[in-house]
Amino acid sequence: MVARKHLLGFFLCLLGTTALATTRSPRLGGPELCNLQRLSATQPAQRLEFEGGSIETWDVNDDQFQCVGVAPMRKTIQPNSLSLPSFHPFPRIVFIEEGEGIIGVHFPGCAETFDTGVGQEQLERPRRMGQQGQGEQQGGTDSHQKVRRFRRGDIIAIPAGAVHWTYNDGNQEVVAISINDINNPANQLDMQPRSFFLAGGTSSQRVQGQIRHPGRQQQQQGGSFDFQNIFAGFDTELLAEAFNSDPQIVRSMQETGNRGLIVRVQQPMQFVTPDEETQERTPFQRRQGGRAANGLEETICSAKLLYNLDNQREADVFSRQAGKLNVVNEHKLPILSYLDLSAEKGHLQQNALFTPHWSMNSHTVVYVLRGDAHVQIVSNNGEAVFDEQVNRGDLYVVPQFFAAVSRAGQNGFEWVAFKTNRSPMKSPVAGYTSVFRAMPLEVLTNSYDISPSQAQNLKTNRETESMLFSPQRTSQRS
Amino acid sequence: MVARKHLLGFFLCLLGTTALATTRSPRLGGPELCNLQRLSATQPAQRLEFEGGSIETWDVNDDQFQCVGVAPMRKTIQPNSLSLPSFHPFPRIVFIEEGEGIIGVHFPGCAETFDTGVGQEQLERPRRMGQQGQGEQQGGTDSHQKVRRFRRGDIIAIPAGAVHWTYNDGNQEVVAISINDINNPANQLDMQPRSFFLAGGTSSQRVQGQIRHPGRQQQQQGGSFDFQNIFAGFDTELLAEAFNSDPQIVRSMQETGNRGLIVRVQQPMQFVTPDEETQERTPFQRRQGGRAANGLEETICSAKLLYNLDNQREADVFSRQAGKLNVVNEHKLPILSYLDLSAEKGHLQQNALFTPHWSMNSHTVVYVLRGDAHVQIVSNNGEAVFDEQVNRGDLYVVPQFFAAVSRAGQNGFEWVAFKTNRSPMKSPVAGYTSVFRAMPLEVLTNSYDISPSQAQNLKTNRETESMLFSPQRTSQRS
Amino acid sequence: MVARKHLLGFFLCLLGTTALATTRSPRLGGPELCNLQRLSATQPAQRLEFEGGSIETWDVNDDQFQCVGVAPMRKTIQPNSLSLPSFHPFPRIVFIEEGEGIIGVHFPGCAETFDTGVGQEQLERPRRMGQQGQGEQQGGTDSHQKVRRFRRGDIIAIPAGAVHWTYNDGNQEVVAISINDINNPANQLDMQPRSFFLAGGTSSQRVQGQIRHPGRQQQQQGGSFDFQNIFAGFDTELLAEAFNSDPQIVRSMQETGNRGLIVRVQQPMQFVTPDEETQERTPFQRRQGGRAANGLEETICSAKLLYNLDNQREADVFSRQAGKLNVVNEHKLPILSYLDLSAEKGHLQQNALFTPHWSMNSHTVVYVLRGDAHVQIVSNNGEAVFDEQVNRGDLYVVPQFFAAVSRAGQNGFEWVAFKTNRSPMKSPVAGYTSVFRAMPLEVLTNSYDISPSQAQNLKTNRETESMLFSPQRTSQRS
Repeated sequence: MVARKHLLGFFLCLLGTTALATTRSPRLGGPELCNLQRLSATQPAQRLEFEGGSIETWDVNDDQFQCVGVAPMRKTIQPNSLSLPSFHPFPRIVFIEEGEGIIGVHFPGCAETFDTGVGQEQLERPRRMGQQGQGEQQGGTDSHQKVRRFRRGDIIAIPAGAVHWTYNDGNQEVVAISINDINNPANQLDMQPRSFFLAGGTSSQRVQGQIRHPGRQQQQQGGSFDFQNIFAGFDTELLAEAFNSDPQIVRSMQETGNRGLIVRVQQPMQFVTPDEETQERTPFQRRQGGRAANGLEETICSAKLLYNLDNQREADVFSRQAGKLNVVNEHKLPILSYLDLSAEKGHLQQNALFTPHWSMNSHTVVYVLRGDAHVQIVSNNGEAVFDEQVNRGDLYVVPQFFAAVSRAGQNGFEWVAFKTNRSPMKSPVAGYTSVFRAMPLEVLTNSYDISPSQAQNLKTNRETESMLFSPQRTSQRS
Repeated sequence: MVARKHLLGFFLCLLGTTALATTRSPRLGGPELCNLQRLSATQPAQRLEFEGGSIETWDVNDDQFQCVGVAPMRKTIQPNSLSLPSFHPFPRIVFIEEGEGIIGVHFPGCAETFDTGVGQEQLERPRRMGQQGQGEQQGGTDSHQKVRRFRRGDIIAIPAGAVHWTYNDGNQEVVAISINDINNPANQLDMQPRSFFLAGGTSSQRVQGQIRHPGRQQQQQGGSFDFQNIFAGFDTELLAEAFNSDPQIVRSMQETGNRGLIVRVQQPMQFVTPDEETQERTPFQRRQGGRAANGLEETICSAKLLYNLDNQREADVFSRQAGKLNVVNEHKLPILSYLDLSAEKGHLQQNALFTPHWSMNSHTVVYVLRGDAHVQIVSNNGEAVFDEQVNRGDLYVVPQFFAAVSRAGQNGFEWVAFKTNRSPMKSPVAGYTSVFRAMPLEVLTNSYDISPSQAQNLKTNRETESMLFSPQRTSQRS
Repeated sequence: MVARKHLLGFFLCLLGTTALATTRSPRLGGPELCNLQRLSATQPAQRLEFEGGSIETWDVNDDQFQCVGVAPMRKTIQPNSLSLPSFHPFPRIVFIEEGEGIIGVHFPGCAETFDTGVGQEQLERPRRMGQQGQGEQQGGTDSHQKVRRFRRGDIIAIPAGAVHWTYNDGNQEVVAISINDINNPANQLDMQPRSFFLAGGTSSQRVQGQIRHPGRQQQQQGGSFDFQNIFAGFDTELLAEAFNSDPQIVRSMQETGNRGLIVRVQQPMQFVTPDEETQERTPFQRRQGGRAANGLEETICSAKLLYNLDNQREADVFSRQAGKLNVVNEHKLPILSYLDLSAEKGHLQQNALFTPHWSMNSHTVVYVLRGDAHVQIVSNNGEAVFDEQVNRGDLYVVPQFFAAVSRAGQNGFEWVAFKTNRSPMKSPVAGYTSVFRAMPLEVLTNSYDISPSQAQNLKTNRETESMLFSPQRTSQRS
């Protein structure tokens, strides 16, 4: 037991030391930007409908998003549809709520290591998905950078400036919730949630919902949204010369009509990807054997960008009575150390509690996946700035150092939390690793004017549990 | 002599290289925030009186504190009084001006390595302080995280978000002056000097002094100050369930009446701490033997958080005629590399001088401990923005790159300086390591239109002294 | 070919991984600071004339410089003139457009390793420049820190807070264009482009051009500019005591009349510098033998501060038909890792193109050295915010992630580009390392609604070229 205590302490501390070294700044934009009197559970403020899906965005001018400096987004991609190539001036972290598909995240200078050539097939055992079609017509001569298969429960890390596209080759909708970390050191522009599109565009896009403009009270209901891709801004002849191609091809790139940002694909696309079983086994074997990373693994070209949070065997906190927590930080997905972001998927059993705690080194953005919970968040003034029942699809913000507690409802509570630190660290006030256990008994008795046995109560009544608390004991008590 | 020159150069350069790698940003809040026309020596603007002591704060809306991004604070704790547990969203560095006591700084997940158990006493030779009392009633069964004994002259490093409390178990007042580094990368909130209290609170606290509100001209004289601890914001039943304790205990945590932030303790508290002599000897032996740090020492749990600046043998600059400088930076107290803060205690003999110099990589906040001095600070415009006699209890700011010179009065001059860099670097214009010695003679003659012998004068008349200059030579000359 | 692909990918990725770890923040000063509707090629807004040369500065209140956070500057130094010692609170990167001379960049605590003593001459083979004169009168007894010879094509890195001076000992004007990186983590002051002068000053300096004050519409035509050096702000007696020198000498430092910032030198100055041939050979040998850096080389005192961008053998991209690119980043000049800045000199042959691309991790400030080009820059809205013919002496800004393309005119195009990252990374849309080659063919066909052969065209028509494209192929095609 003592050994367990020391080991846990040591492990958490390793996380701690690296986590303390950060590169962020206090939130820009004014000295009182985080004087939040009231937080609230929010829904998307705007919805863009496209041929092959939709994009919903939250209102970044909302005080709580201004304080934490992130822009949330939910993308829905229909089967056999393609979210067109784009990039953004800040890192994004994506959680796949539903569906599966293929994502390409491309870095300049990385080699085209995926080849459709027939001769390779037996050596590399690639699997071709979808029906035989267009691809075959080109004689299998295309080569391109690595593409990645994603599925429900995956976290996907997309670095700033990297071109990416997503294709739904499954039978159901892909629903992806993501966070754009605008206040990230990688972004040398300003605090606007910009995107750069390499394809698509529209001249009169229908918008559902409100568009709020900063500094103005007026709001638009169902306005329009025009955008062009970056090629539209260039001179056609100049671009044609750069590509050494016919101006007509370049014109196709520039004049994309009303294709929007997500298009339906004529013939199902087929990509070469390594056999899925093999892909799964490799990381597992590595963890088992404890093989250390060598330099090559750490280049961006071969970096792992995905991590599945649905693997129960990988849970970081697990209690049959209370629930489970799966964390992905820089130690599990090293690319996150460059993004300075991480995530956590949690599940609380019926009536179970998430300990009152604050985050030492990150803001937290929580998105509710299933069930419901009663959540309270308290500011430095000791005021409850959030005291709500949250339900599926709600998104709420817990600013750094603000204390929060959650109790699941009758149907349990499942959520994904995005965090603005590569190795986030929680400070719980109750439970095994709590600050109350850390303090001497007499400090508690004198702080709260309580008896030693009452203080002992606070220190030890939850000492066998950590982070997630079962509801049983309380029931026994009351 | 040449060897000494090279060695000194090499040593200073090592500091330099690490010091140049910083994670800060230009000061937030406006492009002209450091257009300081006038600096001034300041006293606390506000004083909060509590049962067991007082807290004095400087006016953070003062232009000079806005420029350097720090909030100074002075805390006085009466004998047998406890400064209640709290944390803050930025690192704090504390200097103990008077008294001694016990401080607890707690990190989540660190093991409870201090045990009051009787069986341990002979093995670990713990010392119990204070009279036998309440503690014994619990049968010595409490265990908690490491607590640390502090005394006059100590610098204490408190990381952002770490819960800490302070107990005065001595016979005299504890007076602690500290700096909150609001513009620190660890703070992802805004530039407000917030604190989060885990205990205490008040509904109508008497405030002495002025409370200035940003952006308003009106000022309050002796107004009131209400605050609650963070538990007050939570639902009592929910918290009781989280602690698995009686709601009555939780209510004691929430409703703290007018306990304020520093309370008088009923019965003197007693803590297990290792024998003081042993504690003192260990770091000294380590320095002697030159034992390198291993990974374990670098975890936060066992990190050294205190460093005493009164040890004359540890002085970094020492001159019998001029005075001494004791520096604590990341190389002496490694936790400072995470805080990106450091400090320096200086003492000038009667009429001695601190060389004209500027700081290459930090702001400096100076607090006068004893004696007095004539201090001049010059801005980039070549204007004296500060030209004052400073006395005990005065606090003044030297922004990064601003040039400053000090001459002690008849009673000498003693101060502590807080710096916003883990390894601060001074650039003196006179003395052994000065920029004038670095420049070729002809650059000086042509820059100032002076003769070679005059330039030689500037280069060499103080060359045997470094940083601190004795007053004698000048007397001989004039 | 495959091997070449992999190697290139690997090399670029190494750059990539280090480049992604940055310490910057989104641009301060407001959430919409980079909402740039229009960029433009600019000329200096202000010119200060001095006895020995002139200083021209660009208007830092221009929106485009506000967005990228840099202040450009051009200094002209007449033969036998000295730019007086000064320092600035942010790093500066200098490109020598014309001429040659000597620069001193001094760090506190570094040893005076350059000695004019006669006995040293045979051992160290120093070379004395200029005629024998004043120096000899002092009997060769002066010692000072290293001084460095610079020549046309050199990039010079000057860290924040380091005192530096420049002397033109050649027969032609020295013209130096430089960038002050105000938004650098080394600067803890605000966003004003300050300088601190150690010598010189003026009471009524004639200014040519406009002086714009932030926030006001009124502009001055040919106003006056007064400044004093930092010694002028100190009390003369106090400073005399600090230097242990006669107050008359100190008064010469303070009252510099109208010397300005660049003075004509009475008798040509002569410095000890190692033989130039030896200096040149040493770094070359090191690269050849692949000798790794040891700790000593990395101290600031012996750091290399200069790198010549005119060496064709060192070109990073070279094409006889298209042109060449010489890059200097942290891997070639390690001090740049502390400055978080870098540079690139490019040359396009007549009618050749610089591929459409965006920068992944830096802003770019381009200064035109020779020839002309048609440059287009496109924002995230797909709008051409810049579409101009640029000529010699023009300076323009390409914000991070904005896409740019250039086509040289009839006389070719030569430029130097300054970048706000230690290891900048480009993302080209056409050519060997382009994002189009990285994407699967079917993503292109579906994104642009084009045929497979058209997509193949976009992927491969420039695949043998990288970054710089020859004009011939297009001519053949059309």
